[in-house]
Amino acid sequence: MVDSRERAEAMYQRDLTCQTLGITLEEVAEGRVSVRMPVTSAMVNGHGIAHGGYLFLLADAAFAFASNTHGPIALARSAEVTFLRPVAVGESLLAEAVERTRSGLEGIYDVTVRRLDGTVIAEFRGHSVLITETQAKRLLG
Amino acid sequence: MVDSRERAEAMYQRDLTCQTLGITLEEVAEGRVSVRMPVTSAMVNGHGIAHGGYLFLLADAAFAFASNTHGPIALARSAEVTFLRPVAVGESLLAEAVERTRSGLEGIYDVTVRRLDGTVIAEFRGHSVLITETQAKRLLG
Amino acid sequence: MVDSRERAEAMYQRDLTCQTLGITLEEVAEGRVSVRMPVTSAMVNGHGIAHGGYLFLLADAAFAFASNTHGPIALARSAEVTFLRPVAVGESLLAEAVERTRSGLEGIYDVTVRRLDGTVIAEFRGHSVLITETQAKRLLG
Amino acid sequence: MVDSRERAEAMYQRDLTCQTLGITLEEVAEGRVSVRMPVTSAMVNGHGIAHGGYLFLLADAAFAFASNTHGPIALARSAEVTFLRPVAVGESLLAEAVERTRSGLEGIYDVTVRRLDGTVIAEFRGHSVLITETQAKRLLG
Repeated sequence: MVDSRERAEAMYQRDLTCQTLGITLEEVAEGRVSVRMPVTSAMVNGHGIAHGGYLFLLADAAFAFASNTHGPIALARSAEVTFLRPVAVGESLLAEAVERTRSGLEGIYDVTVRRLDGTVIAEFRGHSVLITETQAKRLLG
Repeated sequence: MVDSRERAEAMYQRDLTCQTLGITLEEVAEGRVSVRMPVTSAMVNGHGIAHGGYLFLLADAAFAFASNTHGPIALARSAEVTFLRPVAVGESLLAEAVERTRSGLEGIYDVTVRRLDGTVIAEFRGHSVLITETQAKRLLG
Repeated sequence: MVDSRERAEAMYQRDLTCQTLGITLEEVAEGRVSVRMPVTSAMVNGHGIAHGGYLFLLADAAFAFASNTHGPIALARSAEVTFLRPVAVGESLLAEAVERTRSGLEGIYDVTVRRLDGTVIAEFRGHSVLITETQAKRLLG
Repeated sequence: MVDSRERAEAMYQRDLTCQTLGITLEEVAEGRVSVRMPVTSAMVNGHGIAHGGYLFLLADAAFAFASNTHGPIALARSAEVTFLRPVAVGESLLAEAVERTRSGLEGIYDVTVRRLDGTVIAEFRGHSVLITETQAKRLLG
């Protein structure tokens, strides 16, 4: 799947969020991408564990790469996340996005976030919508 | 609402995520908190706009502070976000969390994320659960 | 708001689901509709309480009427429901839909389902999309 | 999986909703159940198509049976549904629930609703919680 990989890497080059947070692209196939992130001390919330916002962000990144493997341009429209277990600083997390369905312009992607030992720590479902180049110009500037 | 404010500020002191990202506590009342965040160039995604993960994180932070204004310890169990408009680097965003309902140990909080001019850019709904000190020790270490 | 009321009643005349289940239109205003439903013994699930599907259906009905008060034609795209308390046969429920936001073709509506004494039994959030007459013809036949 | 099947059928015997609507149990395995429903003219909404409430109800029924295959008693806590295509009267629908994860007392189940030709018409994700016999007595009467 050269095209999917190339597309994901080109997106990654522009993605300062992923680069800044040390999120890396792992497996890439059509409709299917996994990414990895180290949980650092800057990601702690007021309860002393990893901020749920970063767990969501990691899943959302996997979702964004996966929904764009088919070609430009898929935007996230909505997402739902369930936090199943707390995460400590120092852990590394793996998020794997898998396409569930595509119908017209819409796509649904399921993302599971796991510790490296396989324990599931969050389940995420993202809804994407394809936009045209014209819409992209208007929306994304 | 001195207690709510004190509780939120104590949580904020331990919240390295919010401090690192420049998220600030604004209004605080019981069940109701707003927070503010500047969108920086480190928050850009592969489409050149603010990463949805950071928009979620901001809403999630407001939700966490609001659900903990009643006293220890509310954890986020799940959340749903809808992205309505793209956000550019350089903007500042305001997320306002309002308690919708509490029933037993569960709470539901609605968070609206707006530009400073009031334009709504995301709607979020978070579900929290109260845990006991004992559970907190086991879960949060 | 004569127009909103007329529009809701015209929709109701074609809505065999609501008529069959004894769901009635109560308050109607622009972006805001409440409906009522008696919980009958035909609505029991395998646990002996009201089937969550009917609680959702009631909220969804309120959402559909509210999202169509502005004029044709809003379709439900997705919805999320949280069940807070079980409901017994013989109760009557009231669902009140309130518009949270509209942006372009999209709308978000919050629906609270209550017992007649005001106890909240479910919270629902629905996402609608406006379609054109042409799309309606193609989609709805 | 004799136990799963027996458990599902015992639940079905008490489920007047499923019986009244002509919903039938199809495949049953641990954590995995499919159910079928004919869309009748009593299920029409104000747009002349199947009411989304019934599509949700069908998915919710599959979810309830699947989450209870492990033994008593799993209740639905929340669910999210996306409607992908309209459904006409006279169609038959198949909803297949598959367990995604279980963690402690919580379970997540994905349900896909399809026409008999396999076309996906809705995607659903349900969250269940296990309750004890004591809680069941208090909650379910």
